[in-house]
Amino acid sequence: MSPFSRNHAETVAALGEEKLLTAIQRWLGPVSPRRPFGIGDDCAVLAGTPRRQLLTVDPVVYGRHFDDAVPARAVGAKLLKRNLSDLAAMGGRPTAAVLALSLDARTSLRWLEEFYRGLAATARKHRVAIVGGDVVQAESGLAATLTLLGEATGPRILTRRGARIGDHICVTGTLGGSLQSGHHYRFTPRLAEGAWLARRREVRAMMDVSDGLAKDLHALTPPAARPSIPAAAVPRRRGCPIEAALTDGEDYELLFVLGRETDPKIFARKWRQAFPRTPLTCLGRFVPATRADPDALDFQRYHGYEHLR
Amino acid sequence: MSPFSRNHAETVAALGEEKLLTAIQRWLGPVSPRRPFGIGDDCAVLAGTPRRQLLTVDPVVYGRHFDDAVPARAVGAKLLKRNLSDLAAMGGRPTAAVLALSLDARTSLRWLEEFYRGLAATARKHRVAIVGGDVVQAESGLAATLTLLGEATGPRILTRRGARIGDHICVTGTLGGSLQSGHHYRFTPRLAEGAWLARRREVRAMMDVSDGLAKDLHALTPPAARPSIPAAAVPRRRGCPIEAALTDGEDYELLFVLGRETDPKIFARKWRQAFPRTPLTCLGRFVPATRADPDALDFQRYHGYEHLR
Repeated sequence: MSPFSRNHAETVAALGEEKLLTAIQRWLGPVSPRRPFGIGDDCAVLAGTPRRQLLTVDPVVYGRHFDDAVPARAVGAKLLKRNLSDLAAMGGRPTAAVLALSLDARTSLRWLEEFYRGLAATARKHRVAIVGGDVVQAESGLAATLTLLGEATGPRILTRRGARIGDHICVTGTLGGSLQSGHHYRFTPRLAEGAWLARRREVRAMMDVSDGLAKDLHALTPPAARPSIPAAAVPRRRGCPIEAALTDGEDYELLFVLGRETDPKIFARKWRQAFPRTPLTCLGRFVPATRADPDALDFQRYHGYEHLR
Repeated sequence: MSPFSRNHAETVAALGEEKLLTAIQRWLGPVSPRRPFGIGDDCAVLAGTPRRQLLTVDPVVYGRHFDDAVPARAVGAKLLKRNLSDLAAMGGRPTAAVLALSLDARTSLRWLEEFYRGLAATARKHRVAIVGGDVVQAESGLAATLTLLGEATGPRILTRRGARIGDHICVTGTLGGSLQSGHHYRFTPRLAEGAWLARRREVRAMMDVSDGLAKDLHALTPPAARPSIPAAAVPRRRGCPIEAALTDGEDYELLFVLGRETDPKIFARKWRQAFPRTPLTCLGRFVPATRADPDALDFQRYHGYEHLR
């Protein structure tokens, strides 16, 4: 379904700003609290919290993160889930979000309603309040930027820092082929897994895989080290060549590091008890950068998703 | 200065994503804390707070909120100040912000550096930490969306609700001609004034004037009431006709309501002691909607800035 219509009566321009804002609140339904806590005042008002807070922002842009082949509901869901995946990657849970929409006057009302209903359904599922937003007219195209506020689920937040030489590298799920398989909008953000991992002392660092393992793993790698991972260890989506598994991106899986003293087999057993339906793979370890390792993947050869090219 | 360049070597595409992110952190300087508190991890980490929090989002879009005539530094400053004005309107102060940038590969590096340096200077002045962001390539154009988190400065937050019939309507500064005069990017957000007003029990409701008084005042008007304001009472920027003062928008002034039992003259005296350089005008009062009032402005005749038209 195209987000645009040539029939003026079916577009946002026909409705006008004020009625559009009323419609958006109706489409969002109960996930959008009444002002002053939500939409309709200069700012949204949120309760204070003793916990550390997490803040992240990610957009979806027409022609880049979705096209006419992706259902509008799935686009709304994807926008929130991309941000939820960033929260999951630090072991957090969501609290509230604001949404800035930039749209062409030809944007179809039917498309937009489905987009907001998809967003609302995902927000309800993960208990996120959509507390504010902004709508601006653009020359062309359609882009939505969501900023998500969350908080720590326990005393510990997992960052990308903390891995040491000898530590084990693990990943959830399977990698590659996200666009072709529809995983890029069907995925479930690993919030429960992220919160569980943040409570385990064996886990030293974590991030989500969004630009491809080959690129993202670099951010977890400690100084003077490199990952030693054989190609056979990488869990690939059915039909995916190794290059696709390493570089396609949009996997939205958790990539994390276990301290070297941890036995990955014992850890995997605990994992299966907690998450029997989420695959876990121990890929390999960080080794000194100088060590020769002919069986390991040479990540320098692969490039993950490159923005601005 | 145009944000775009035809000389590839001068554009963001020539630099590539990774180097661009490093450059952005350099341009932001100390207002951008190191990860995990700022840019560089999946989320930014913020301290908890016992105070109520405020959240708002506003963009600047090329061709709409700025053009080649506005200096790039002023565009960066305006983006943050628009959001600060929303915080001021509830009596809040800022804590942290994230920025999502959507840009054409032809965007000039020099323009972008100036934009970020302008943003950083304003952030430093108002003690806002720029803790995260996202950069995405767009087909064309340039848009930046900033989400600002803040908190209450005292026990009270002022919302748009609370006015009653008989209450006085007041506004700071002068109105109209924002585009022509450059006020739309030179303005100072009324943060100190907003925090002061939130501490005064005489003040019942507040908002900022961004789409023009004629449109915005509607949001403060209680049910079954209308504002009774003579044209002569409206503080106009030099050379502005009354229609411009009511409908131009981008005034970024505070519009607030004093309880009917308050003497506006005594209040104005206290105001002048606190803010000798910020003009304050009592425009009129809310009266029953049914009352005939031939000398008052008929706001139905005027329309403020209409988005999506």
